[in-house]
Amino acid sequence: MAEVGTELAFLPVSGVRVGTAAAGIKYPDRDDLALIALPEEAACAAVFTRNAFCAAPVVVAREHLAKGQVRYLLINSGNANAGTGVTGLEDARQSCVELARLAGCEPHQILPFSTGVIGESLPMDRLLAALPALVAATAEENWPVTARAIMTTDTVPKLVSRQIDLDGQSVTVTGMAKGSGMICPDMATMLAYVATDAAVEPALLQSCLEQAVAPSFNSITVDGDTSTNDACVLVASGSSPVPVIIDRDSGAYAALCEAVRGVCMELARAIVRDGEGATKLVEVLVEQAVDVAEARQVAYAIAHSPLVKTALFASDPNWGRILAVVGRAGVQDLDIDQIHIWLGEVCIVRDGGRAAEYAEEAGQSVMDQSEIIIRVGLGRGDASTTVLTCDLSYDYVRINAEYRT
Amino acid sequence: MAEVGTELAFLPVSGVRVGTAAAGIKYPDRDDLALIALPEEAACAAVFTRNAFCAAPVVVAREHLAKGQVRYLLINSGNANAGTGVTGLEDARQSCVELARLAGCEPHQILPFSTGVIGESLPMDRLLAALPALVAATAEENWPVTARAIMTTDTVPKLVSRQIDLDGQSVTVTGMAKGSGMICPDMATMLAYVATDAAVEPALLQSCLEQAVAPSFNSITVDGDTSTNDACVLVASGSSPVPVIIDRDSGAYAALCEAVRGVCMELARAIVRDGEGATKLVEVLVEQAVDVAEARQVAYAIAHSPLVKTALFASDPNWGRILAVVGRAGVQDLDIDQIHIWLGEVCIVRDGGRAAEYAEEAGQSVMDQSEIIIRVGLGRGDASTTVLTCDLSYDYVRINAEYRT
Repeated sequence: MAEVGTELAFLPVSGVRVGTAAAGIKYPDRDDLALIALPEEAACAAVFTRNAFCAAPVVVAREHLAKGQVRYLLINSGNANAGTGVTGLEDARQSCVELARLAGCEPHQILPFSTGVIGESLPMDRLLAALPALVAATAEENWPVTARAIMTTDTVPKLVSRQIDLDGQSVTVTGMAKGSGMICPDMATMLAYVATDAAVEPALLQSCLEQAVAPSFNSITVDGDTSTNDACVLVASGSSPVPVIIDRDSGAYAALCEAVRGVCMELARAIVRDGEGATKLVEVLVEQAVDVAEARQVAYAIAHSPLVKTALFASDPNWGRILAVVGRAGVQDLDIDQIHIWLGEVCIVRDGGRAAEYAEEAGQSVMDQSEIIIRVGLGRGDASTTVLTCDLSYDYVRINAEYRT
Repeated sequence: MAEVGTELAFLPVSGVRVGTAAAGIKYPDRDDLALIALPEEAACAAVFTRNAFCAAPVVVAREHLAKGQVRYLLINSGNANAGTGVTGLEDARQSCVELARLAGCEPHQILPFSTGVIGESLPMDRLLAALPALVAATAEENWPVTARAIMTTDTVPKLVSRQIDLDGQSVTVTGMAKGSGMICPDMATMLAYVATDAAVEPALLQSCLEQAVAPSFNSITVDGDTSTNDACVLVASGSSPVPVIIDRDSGAYAALCEAVRGVCMELARAIVRDGEGATKLVEVLVEQAVDVAEARQVAYAIAHSPLVKTALFASDPNWGRILAVVGRAGVQDLDIDQIHIWLGEVCIVRDGGRAAEYAEEAGQSVMDQSEIIIRVGLGRGDASTTVLTCDLSYDYVRINAEYRT
């Protein structure tokens, strides 16, 4: 009964209103506040950064989420409200109190999010002054401007929709994200908001989100730095006439999970493609590992290696660098004679040594492409994983060295 | 009785002859073969790369070292003989066989070392043809030219001497190293050779080396990539009239260990200072950790962070980046309220938040210096460690992107 929809241009999500306003937090000429308004019957699930130094809004959003009945997601760009101590917590709470007063709900029904510079306090006067306009600005059609309002160093907005059929009814999943790589320069970085008009029991919605985040937002890296503000939220407005999904084994739940995962994968891919200074999108696929943890360990070692990343930037089929990283990735009792490495379809390392038939021209033709797959077989088991990353360019250094100056 | 000598200009080591020859392996106009010749009574200790893909010469050197009675260390630059399969092993062995024939010893008394490009076979004809000249070229005074012959992308030779007094006799420790950062572009990187004229029982010599390597060569990083060829060798010629050191608790052993550690620390520092594209030398000191492993985990997370390294390049006192890395370094149950961070003498984070008295100008004045200390207090215990690193500059990307082209 459930078929996964193809990728579509943006579609509004029934019951979910979004909108923006300009508070002049950091950028003078653009909207930098965003609001996502949910109906009373909506369910909300979220995952947050694992950084021990999580930002004030993350602390408050976690507290409020635990109380249930979320009605608003309030987001500002330009300032992360991180490393701001007690003042930062008070600011995050005050934003919720003031918005609750304007919108006619309880403060704990609002989840606050911030993204931008770490270590500076929010300009609360300007932020609060913009809230009335923000509340008045929401509509189901406003996703495109909202996807722009949450951007920081992103060069393009990231907005993805899918539509699926559940029990003969059309259900929409639409998501937006911001993040120019896993890290932005000094920025507390990735935010993603995914909404559906399906009705989903809250515990199932949380599982759905966690399953979607693992292979998408939790499998990308630009440079390994994890921000203090990362968050991903999935809301289900329940405005669709489809019956509430309460059965973990139902086809409807499976179909919804697949659509949500698809939207998250596409958004994650868009983040890496927009990674700071990135000129290539690189998929690191590690196979035949003992378990997924081992596969991820090797995949991230490759994806984080400055040597591999500069070779990718240079379109240099420098297989020795990949081989050396696999060797230092910390895999216990690695038998190097079992290692195979491919660039795209070209086998470059077989049984731990340079493949006999490998010719530099074949590797070069793969490296010249803008999307590259590095595939490593460890010959140890059946587990595999994929990590998405990008190359390391002059522009990465420029963006991160010149930021703040 | 033992006082640690001050740092000296290069001093020859009695009984240890070194020399060079030109084999044209990669560089046309310079010596690229080096030989270290030891007397029969010498003892030899070594540590090698932990990379599972260790190069052919590392395999052969380990085998030969186990048989004892080392007489010659044979080193070539320009080619790592790594990722070269069976041919590479045969080449490394053949080099030893031919040198043994010329020098009048057994092949297993020779340890081979290579540094340079991975994945290309050694030009054996040219290498073997240069061996007679190499054997004829050794002398106790030749350390400076030898330190140059082992260089690859290094911009300066690295040579350090110390002299200590043991039982009224002067004993010398002289070392040389190559390595332009922990990694060179695609290079199998760090080699270090330290010699003393003291006589030391072999097991004690190995302990002495391991103690010296831990805080020096094993506590530096340019970008976290570990090469396939790293090796550090300590030889004791026994040519000094000082009695053989056989007591682990003796003052003479302690004094020698301190001198060897001092030489290794100085060489390690020289390697980081000569790191690819490096403009700053950065000491990351992590204190108050539960154990040294935890301190190293945090120190390496900071030292590897591209965000921190680009801020260092830009002389930007961007404390939020350091704080965010500490938060993501994976320390179990980290209490962020205990965290203190200093830039040089300037406290930037106190009790987990921006220090009240911190002023950007104070941080800026530290960042403007060419040698910078980042100190982090975790407030969890008594263990500490120091890791040396450098910044991440445009030149790092250039050197590693343009290599091979």
